[in-house]
Amino acid sequence: MRYGFLGPETTFTHQALLQALAETPEEFAGAEPELVPFASVATATTDLLAGDIDALMAPIENSVEGGVSGTLDVLAATDSITIVAEQVVPITFVLAAREPMDPSEVTTVASHPHAQAQVQGWLRAHLPEASIAASSSTAAAARDLASATAEDSVGRAAVCSPLAARHFGLEVLAEGIEDHQGAQTRFVLVTREGRIPARTGSDKSTLVVQLPHNRAGALLEMLEMFSANGVNLSRIESRPIGDFLGRYSFSIDVEGHIEDRRVAAALRALHRVCPVVHYLGSYPRVDGQRPEFREDYADEAYDEARDWVESLTSMVTRPAQGDLNAQAD
Amino acid sequence: MRYGFLGPETTFTHQALLQALAETPEEFAGAEPELVPFASVATATTDLLAGDIDALMAPIENSVEGGVSGTLDVLAATDSITIVAEQVVPITFVLAAREPMDPSEVTTVASHPHAQAQVQGWLRAHLPEASIAASSSTAAAARDLASATAEDSVGRAAVCSPLAARHFGLEVLAEGIEDHQGAQTRFVLVTREGRIPARTGSDKSTLVVQLPHNRAGALLEMLEMFSANGVNLSRIESRPIGDFLGRYSFSIDVEGHIEDRRVAAALRALHRVCPVVHYLGSYPRVDGQRPEFREDYADEAYDEARDWVESLTSMVTRPAQGDLNAQAD
Amino acid sequence: MRYGFLGPETTFTHQALLQALAETPEEFAGAEPELVPFASVATATTDLLAGDIDALMAPIENSVEGGVSGTLDVLAATDSITIVAEQVVPITFVLAAREPMDPSEVTTVASHPHAQAQVQGWLRAHLPEASIAASSSTAAAARDLASATAEDSVGRAAVCSPLAARHFGLEVLAEGIEDHQGAQTRFVLVTREGRIPARTGSDKSTLVVQLPHNRAGALLEMLEMFSANGVNLSRIESRPIGDFLGRYSFSIDVEGHIEDRRVAAALRALHRVCPVVHYLGSYPRVDGQRPEFREDYADEAYDEARDWVESLTSMVTRPAQGDLNAQAD
Amino acid sequence: MRYGFLGPETTFTHQALLQALAETPEEFAGAEPELVPFASVATATTDLLAGDIDALMAPIENSVEGGVSGTLDVLAATDSITIVAEQVVPITFVLAAREPMDPSEVTTVASHPHAQAQVQGWLRAHLPEASIAASSSTAAAARDLASATAEDSVGRAAVCSPLAARHFGLEVLAEGIEDHQGAQTRFVLVTREGRIPARTGSDKSTLVVQLPHNRAGALLEMLEMFSANGVNLSRIESRPIGDFLGRYSFSIDVEGHIEDRRVAAALRALHRVCPVVHYLGSYPRVDGQRPEFREDYADEAYDEARDWVESLTSMVTRPAQGDLNAQAD
Repeated sequence: MRYGFLGPETTFTHQALLQALAETPEEFAGAEPELVPFASVATATTDLLAGDIDALMAPIENSVEGGVSGTLDVLAATDSITIVAEQVVPITFVLAAREPMDPSEVTTVASHPHAQAQVQGWLRAHLPEASIAASSSTAAAARDLASATAEDSVGRAAVCSPLAARHFGLEVLAEGIEDHQGAQTRFVLVTREGRIPARTGSDKSTLVVQLPHNRAGALLEMLEMFSANGVNLSRIESRPIGDFLGRYSFSIDVEGHIEDRRVAAALRALHRVCPVVHYLGSYPRVDGQRPEFREDYADEAYDEARDWVESLTSMVTRPAQGDLNAQAD
Repeated sequence: MRYGFLGPETTFTHQALLQALAETPEEFAGAEPELVPFASVATATTDLLAGDIDALMAPIENSVEGGVSGTLDVLAATDSITIVAEQVVPITFVLAAREPMDPSEVTTVASHPHAQAQVQGWLRAHLPEASIAASSSTAAAARDLASATAEDSVGRAAVCSPLAARHFGLEVLAEGIEDHQGAQTRFVLVTREGRIPARTGSDKSTLVVQLPHNRAGALLEMLEMFSANGVNLSRIESRPIGDFLGRYSFSIDVEGHIEDRRVAAALRALHRVCPVVHYLGSYPRVDGQRPEFREDYADEAYDEARDWVESLTSMVTRPAQGDLNAQAD
Repeated sequence: MRYGFLGPETTFTHQALLQALAETPEEFAGAEPELVPFASVATATTDLLAGDIDALMAPIENSVEGGVSGTLDVLAATDSITIVAEQVVPITFVLAAREPMDPSEVTTVASHPHAQAQVQGWLRAHLPEASIAASSSTAAAARDLASATAEDSVGRAAVCSPLAARHFGLEVLAEGIEDHQGAQTRFVLVTREGRIPARTGSDKSTLVVQLPHNRAGALLEMLEMFSANGVNLSRIESRPIGDFLGRYSFSIDVEGHIEDRRVAAALRALHRVCPVVHYLGSYPRVDGQRPEFREDYADEAYDEARDWVESLTSMVTRPAQGDLNAQAD
Repeated sequence: MRYGFLGPETTFTHQALLQALAETPEEFAGAEPELVPFASVATATTDLLAGDIDALMAPIENSVEGGVSGTLDVLAATDSITIVAEQVVPITFVLAAREPMDPSEVTTVASHPHAQAQVQGWLRAHLPEASIAASSSTAAAARDLASATAEDSVGRAAVCSPLAARHFGLEVLAEGIEDHQGAQTRFVLVTREGRIPARTGSDKSTLVVQLPHNRAGALLEMLEMFSANGVNLSRIESRPIGDFLGRYSFSIDVEGHIEDRRVAAALRALHRVCPVVHYLGSYPRVDGQRPEFREDYADEAYDEARDWVESLTSMVTRPAQGDLNAQAD
């Protein structure tokens, strides 16, 4: 089995994939999994569809930055892929060095500019004198430091992910140095279409929906379909369809599994009304939370309602003439 | 076959039944139908359920007076009956006498007080001098006049239905004498439960629905279920449940047949949410009008949506471990 | 002050009026009130509008029989009247006689057929041998018995209201003899238009609304206006407009007073959308219950929202050319 | 007057600002406007609030890429700024050179990688042999070519905006070379808070709304507020609030001006229900399109409804005791 991830190695996406391997080993059992970094979700998806890899971990949303357009657009545009799992990774940074030292001894800090932007408050407060050196990625900063000679690494530190520090054998001088505490990124594990994980009772389903564009209130109507079936949305994101301004598709996560009658009923309603409904899969929630809903949204309520209406329609018949009370059989 | 109606003979209900026999003879073919008058809808229903009669014509609403409580309450309370047809009868009155004469020669007008109330403007304008005599029904007024001697009937006229005048062989001196032109009463033909007439494309369905009483907005929610399936209501009437003030059931006619997917879908939703949904039948509309609805409420839209969701759920499976891309079957 | 009521004396409407006089004496203070029975709500209303009486008590709904059409139709059709109070009266019957006796000694029971229908179970169980005598009203049955000679009244009893028994000085042999326990009738006190009782915090408002007839879903839209302002309906009743089948107006009671911002907001929305909105008044609830609503439906929430939008619109201005940051004032 | 824009010079944002100056010169009349490039919307906004510039042009959404997070997040986070105008710019690229030449003579093409990604189809088809040189921006590519010696510029071309070609005096060899025809970016002109342009009848308003996070269906409820007032949304975009996954604010454009009664009514409703409603301004639509709405959403309908309810509430009064028909004054 080959698993792609948005690389290079030691990215948070890499960590999400390792986390998945550790937490749900049964999903990955059998042959030793091979982990393959990719430069973009789009190229990884091409390889997935071509059969070169078997699954792909990709970031979908970040609690600070919002939706990850690259992933959302691939999910919206690509048929034949399914989301089978999610992972959430805390976005946290460490200050790491080749040898243990007191942070005050650090004179140069290397990192990727994006990561440095997220720790600049800490650096200003704790290392106001240190000079900043840009590297092509936080992974590269950690790797370069790890491969430096003892001499070259005096006074040098890197800002990188905890995984990168561990991976390259660096000493962590300080952890949790990001300015914005508590940031998280959510990832999805994508496979070729073909199977949907069974319902666990704590599931999510992901959809991409395009609304009828000539109808005011179509978004309201879509939300009413979910509401009428007791289905909550946990994420909604508009993405341009690309043809002109003001035309969107909506990327949506709902609480529940397609095996939940209420989710299936909402999907049927969407299918009738919306020109495009792309179902991307149902999968266990990583937080294990179970949805709350009124009992008239339970499976039994849907099944009993279906049986009742079927029993009624079974009485529809054209009886022999004059026989108004003929029993239908 | 024995057909009950709200009597006595020559009532508008009687006329509705004759109209039904004339317009849809195929429904009544075979043995010669026998028509049986009843004093109330309640007693006729008891006989219907006991098998003493085969069907029953009853008034359900009047364009001036509103819902007919006696019928509505029987429909709400009685299981095991089905509405299989509707009729609409114009409510119009004639001035009739034993022999032809000029209206100005009329000195006494007999009728039931209820009918007289509906023609009092005409009487004041055309027969200001005539004295008014109350009889126990418009039919009795006509019958008494028909059976009077020539001598006794001088100067006497009756206000009755056109059917009564015809039935008792009276001369019509003036017609359409009601003050409120255009009034109509709608009737339903009720049988024992057991068969529902096949869909014609121009149908109505009748329901009695009780709302969850502990939920504000339950009526709104019920109407949304119809709206979400493109189902229009042609009648809605609240009736007390009887236990305390402010507790109602709703008697509802919707446009469509239970074989219409959109009607069936609305019924399923009602069944989930409402403590009581009493389905009273689907039957052809007497006006032949076909409902208009968006194409996403057509049968095909529902069937395709169901097939699509079924094709998705068929992919739900727990694959062999480690086999993320296993096909579902 | 002259107060009309649906007579004759000792009806439940009479009782409702006496109850109002006893419970809210401050409303009726000053000159001794004069109570005037009327044969119908329609004739009493004519006298009210003509200034012959000052107020009128009329039944509006019964927990068993439903809406009282005569009153509803007058309220729908008459401009210039206002409801200023409500009363609820338990519908209960007594068996009364001229002298104390054991019920088993009763050989004849007089009453109005309508009342007898409501006590027939009790009569069958307790007085299976007694003969039934119809009178023109329960009041008449009681009065006749009271004015009979001692001789004539042997073995005779009347079914009447507790008020009638008291009024005519009869002995109550048995009380609560109605088959359907707990029935209630609700009454409204109507005056000429001109003043609305101040808000008490536990109020109702009554409306008659006609929906745009060419728009499917108009009823749903109307209910959404109430729901969007947190206003609950405590009664809704459809009444025919009278022109043709399927055209209704709706008689509605809502929880709240027109001084409640949320009620006023719902009324404004109704007025925009509905061809006819007839406001019939706001008045204290007889049960003293206070409505529950989310804090975003409180007066303060409406007032703050209005102030906020006004502060924004006050910034709308056409500034001196080229002065993009000019202050609005 | 100093106007900021997202630089460097000749960006599409620069072009949007020039377009605004040309199309609505009255807005910019008076002193000669000074145009100031900024490296980011955030830094420009800081200068705007500090009074160093008077207005700022910023991209808000692109028909292919979607919402521009940098701008959306500044709009969501910054109080005291107002949008006063919008502009739409077609995103199109030209192939430009220092001297006229046949495209086939081009051997090297310089541009920013982002722009090259958008023209790679054209380059592959028309200049398959040319080598690609990356520059720091399309503007830099154009400027470098313009400043090259005649000798150095042989066979060299740049992919840049039409504005850059014109600005740096280059010859356009081919235009409209982007692979995705018809792409557009929409820009907003932002000022310090203080004035809102007057209503033109063809306007938009921009809002940032945060929903109550503990209430399922809050998004549906928000959309109902717009729908209940006939207000269409032309853009809706979710952005993370930043505290944790699944918490969003919504950036919204609606059709209409705050002086439209229906927009004001929707805003009042939002203000009651939502913890945060940030109103960012009303401004003329660049397409001049007028919203269509039912007449019950017209200003007159709102004004009449308000007057009607006020006339009713003016009758609320506590009259002298016993005087039920006292006129309110």
